[in-house]
Amino acid sequence: MRAGPSQEEIRRHNLGALLRHVHVHGATSRAELTTTLGLNRSTIGALTADLAAAGLVSEGGARETGRAGRPSLVVRPASERVYAYALSIEVDRLRAARVGLGGRILDIRTAERPRGTLAAEAVGPLTGFVKELHQAVPAGAVCVGSGVAVCGMVRRDDGMVRLGPTMGWVDEPLGAALAEALGGDRGVLVGNVSDVCALAEHTRGAAVGCDHVIYLYGDVGVGAGIIAGGRRVTGHGGYGGEVGHMVVHPGGRPCLCGSRGCWETEIGEHALIQAAGRSGAVVGREAVLAVVDAADRGDSQAQAAVRQVGNWLGFGVANLVNIFNPETVIFGGTLRDVYLAAAAHVRSRLNSNGLPACREHVRLRTPKLGDDAPLIGAAELAFEQLLADPLDAVAG
Amino acid sequence: MRAGPSQEEIRRHNLGALLRHVHVHGATSRAELTTTLGLNRSTIGALTADLAAAGLVSEGGARETGRAGRPSLVVRPASERVYAYALSIEVDRLRAARVGLGGRILDIRTAERPRGTLAAEAVGPLTGFVKELHQAVPAGAVCVGSGVAVCGMVRRDDGMVRLGPTMGWVDEPLGAALAEALGGDRGVLVGNVSDVCALAEHTRGAAVGCDHVIYLYGDVGVGAGIIAGGRRVTGHGGYGGEVGHMVVHPGGRPCLCGSRGCWETEIGEHALIQAAGRSGAVVGREAVLAVVDAADRGDSQAQAAVRQVGNWLGFGVANLVNIFNPETVIFGGTLRDVYLAAAAHVRSRLNSNGLPACREHVRLRTPKLGDDAPLIGAAELAFEQLLADPLDAVAG
Repeated sequence: MRAGPSQEEIRRHNLGALLRHVHVHGATSRAELTTTLGLNRSTIGALTADLAAAGLVSEGGARETGRAGRPSLVVRPASERVYAYALSIEVDRLRAARVGLGGRILDIRTAERPRGTLAAEAVGPLTGFVKELHQAVPAGAVCVGSGVAVCGMVRRDDGMVRLGPTMGWVDEPLGAALAEALGGDRGVLVGNVSDVCALAEHTRGAAVGCDHVIYLYGDVGVGAGIIAGGRRVTGHGGYGGEVGHMVVHPGGRPCLCGSRGCWETEIGEHALIQAAGRSGAVVGREAVLAVVDAADRGDSQAQAAVRQVGNWLGFGVANLVNIFNPETVIFGGTLRDVYLAAAAHVRSRLNSNGLPACREHVRLRTPKLGDDAPLIGAAELAFEQLLADPLDAVAG
Repeated sequence: MRAGPSQEEIRRHNLGALLRHVHVHGATSRAELTTTLGLNRSTIGALTADLAAAGLVSEGGARETGRAGRPSLVVRPASERVYAYALSIEVDRLRAARVGLGGRILDIRTAERPRGTLAAEAVGPLTGFVKELHQAVPAGAVCVGSGVAVCGMVRRDDGMVRLGPTMGWVDEPLGAALAEALGGDRGVLVGNVSDVCALAEHTRGAAVGCDHVIYLYGDVGVGAGIIAGGRRVTGHGGYGGEVGHMVVHPGGRPCLCGSRGCWETEIGEHALIQAAGRSGAVVGREAVLAVVDAADRGDSQAQAAVRQVGNWLGFGVANLVNIFNPETVIFGGTLRDVYLAAAAHVRSRLNSNGLPACREHVRLRTPKLGDDAPLIGAAELAFEQLLADPLDAVAG
């Protein structure tokens, strides 16, 4: 166990705590910061001055408190000046955004991504987007790094995409390729889309204040971003959360991972589309929504498909609830649409398979950040270093 | 986010860090402490003096370092003077031990526990054991609290046993009953046996130095103690790790929890004993070992039973490896014996169902602390408060 921190480490910690607070909660008065951080007024004043001098926060615009006495100055994150690039490689599209400190999307570019292309083939278009975004950056603004959300298994250390079974990806050095293409000495941090969405919803979405969260992200495949005790659970190499490859149906359908009966073979978009008798040209969210709509209009085959997939969705959720005893389970990607259409089946299966103590307080939720979650979360990855040591991160 | 610590908090943190080091690693020279904790010699000297004055460590017996210069004084945990009571309620027995700081079992009592009795019925015999143990305590020794390992689902806040499906336990206030029976103002901390064993093996057993650990404990039921990023994953109420109720076989055998096809119906002791055609009077580890021995001697039905249970064991381990990407999986309780007999089947199933990136570095292990793990881990629960704030914990 390490010994306690030095005075200088405490100062850096406090700078990070203050900056993180305004990054997450937005404009905050000095008086609120004093209460929240448990530091005295003069310390808050000194920390704010240091952060303002580094261009990370601005002060002013005293808010009316409604109480007597001098109104307290308000500290705001420098969202226009300090930003990260957030990139997202999804099954059907590529996106790049410039995200300001405070989690605000300032500018964005989107393109379709043809299925069947490699992860490496995303590097060119995404780099082009970043160059475009860069041209609109105001003078004096500072980029603190780039974060990437990708629908594959990512090695934590270097952003190598080890496997994207539904995409045909094997060992693609995405982190290194993007770092080279984007240039500069700021790092490129790559994360699995489920982990990144969990981070986003935990920081500023449907799981704020929850310490035990499972964020399920579905498209062709299914993964989970897991937060336990307030911290991300990503495993030894960063590959944890592959709940889509939890086998729930021994001897079931073959999975692209090489196994059989994996959860994603029962709840991924193909399962729903096939069960509805609609395996055709339309794929992706559009096809999922078409089945859900048809079920809603009374199409009995679509209704049976929604029931079947909803039942398997609840089945796997019950397993995860027994394993993690979470407060909140969030259904993202196409699983959002499936959950909304089949909530009663999901809950019923959870009630029959989940242990009462494990499930009694669990809330089933849809994402609050919607489709922005991968970008907001990817930006959070990039902001983490800044928030850990604000002055060091902008000094380089 | 909280602000950084004060000077006094740092001192307490450093006292805890030093005491934790000698508690976990045993006698350590001042020179080694200086290096390990990153503090200077005079700070280590002052901290050691404070801990010695409180009777928590002793100094002396300078070890020969083999190097020139004055030999460094050695700091030892006061194992004879500072202790916790560790209690364990298992399927077939009750145990109580006095465990010294440093994790040494100083004295122990054991009794058979008739199957079918309530958790509350253990309070009397365990209290009797503690009274016996207490009579042998040397004058001046200090008890820092009691920890309990129990094969049921435990509410973290108060040690209520919510459910022990294989035991017929429902909502038994074990923590409160033991606290009242034992008296005194030291707390009684109750934990699930798998969690407690994981803590023990992580602190001083087969998972030392591993940040991502799954400890599987099996008897009639099966549970897991999970450590991710160096921290225990116990969920919102403390009920996480119920991997025995992960459904792996839809429509399979009924489980005592009310569901069907739970993992423990395929790998618990009844599954093995039944598959070997031996459902008779002998139960528990004795019966499990009898099947394993028979398989070893060439009994074909016993061999088939070991294969079948080993296959299901590997099946569930693969699911957990995909979810957690652990470094180490430990097989405890009767699963130790099943794993040793069926290691090839377990590994084979893990290889076919586990994603390569998730399983490539995983080590499958048996416990290093053997049957002592529940007691050592229960004592660790009781020592945690002492290690967090040493002087406060012994001042009361």
